[in-house]
Amino acid sequence: MLRLQVDALNAAYAAALDERRFDDWPEFFTQDALYQVQARENFDRGLPLSLMALESKAMMKDRVYGITQTIYHAPYYTRHVIGPAQLLAPQLLSHEGDRIRAQAHYAVFRTRPGDATQVYNVGRYLDEFVQTPAGLKLASRRCIYDSEMVLNSLIYPI
Amino acid sequence: MLRLQVDALNAAYAAALDERRFDDWPEFFTQDALYQVQARENFDRGLPLSLMALESKAMMKDRVYGITQTIYHAPYYTRHVIGPAQLLAPQLLSHEGDRIRAQAHYAVFRTRPGDATQVYNVGRYLDEFVQTPAGLKLASRRCIYDSEMVLNSLIYPI
Amino acid sequence: MLRLQVDALNAAYAAALDERRFDDWPEFFTQDALYQVQARENFDRGLPLSLMALESKAMMKDRVYGITQTIYHAPYYTRHVIGPAQLLAPQLLSHEGDRIRAQAHYAVFRTRPGDATQVYNVGRYLDEFVQTPAGLKLASRRCIYDSEMVLNSLIYPI
Repeated sequence: MLRLQVDALNAAYAAALDERRFDDWPEFFTQDALYQVQARENFDRGLPLSLMALESKAMMKDRVYGITQTIYHAPYYTRHVIGPAQLLAPQLLSHEGDRIRAQAHYAVFRTRPGDATQVYNVGRYLDEFVQTPAGLKLASRRCIYDSEMVLNSLIYPI
Repeated sequence: MLRLQVDALNAAYAAALDERRFDDWPEFFTQDALYQVQARENFDRGLPLSLMALESKAMMKDRVYGITQTIYHAPYYTRHVIGPAQLLAPQLLSHEGDRIRAQAHYAVFRTRPGDATQVYNVGRYLDEFVQTPAGLKLASRRCIYDSEMVLNSLIYPI
Repeated sequence: MLRLQVDALNAAYAAALDERRFDDWPEFFTQDALYQVQARENFDRGLPLSLMALESKAMMKDRVYGITQTIYHAPYYTRHVIGPAQLLAPQLLSHEGDRIRAQAHYAVFRTRPGDATQVYNVGRYLDEFVQTPAGLKLASRRCIYDSEMVLNSLIYPI
């Protein structure tokens, strides 16, 4: 059942990020997938500005390299809690008929060493999936976030 | 599968509220449905006092009119994250045999402009659903919330 | 479908704890089940130290007796929001072939009287289930938590 496949992908995606298996993260996407992290305010107004926009799996791998090898930053744990996905009508945004559209609400919590756990980022994943021989893959994931603050320090993908 | 239908309704319900499509909100209910927001303390003691009690879809529409047209309030974003629903035994509370009883735990986060995201309201939806020609509808949704504070400013439905 | 059974168990488990039906809590486990609450840092390093480790249902019942009868503590409400579970490959950790391995991310919120709701504990359930004549039961639940603080006052199971 399709929605259960989407939920399973989301759970595996969250686990990869929260367990810091960052190399696994690009593998949830197709080669030419879009990954975008955008403020809800910009999304709602149709503005292009986003906090992060990666336009291929190669760019995602480069980002992972940055996270794990080059960026100096204070460590923190993340924890994604994602609600059951909602399948969306296929015709609304998709330019390709075979894409599966879905969204899911998420909350990401952050824990820094010696500090209380905080609400870090909440929003929704607005997704397009395709079926591939290797299973369901993200052709596009837009993380539309409500949270305005804290994100100056966004290091890890949402 | 019934539980997946409930999850799908909950996801669509959350999306309508969080995307501020308030006119869509009453459409999740039957004509004579109950919508109630009640403190857990009162619910547990069997007390009738509640923060909001709307006893028909017409009252819900009136509330939506109030939210969108007449109430002056500081804007804020909401984000619902709802866990998978739990189907409940039909005989426990229902007075009608064809009602489907379920509950789901929720967290609602609030983001005000220029401020960090906060935990706004957590609790559970205690629901009765009916199957209609237009799909599953809420005959009763009671939002039993743990949170005591912040709610003096409850504007939008939970 | 197996994953839906796991989600249903998690929802019922969360409801039992949050509704303070503590006597129901050990019933989610097999007789010789393990229940452990462990910091992520210790788990990741393979260290045995944990905040709570109960090695049978009898120990869990004893803990419930402690919670409800003997421990003096300030009351608080809890609310679990658990994401859809992820089934894990059977061979990775399990020493018994008939065990079903799964994990799910959770957030537990705490509300103390007269106070705002707080993020109390976030992490993941790392679980082993078995099918029994009475349905799916936990043979092992390890609560691997990110949160370092607040837990000095952990009273109720996670």
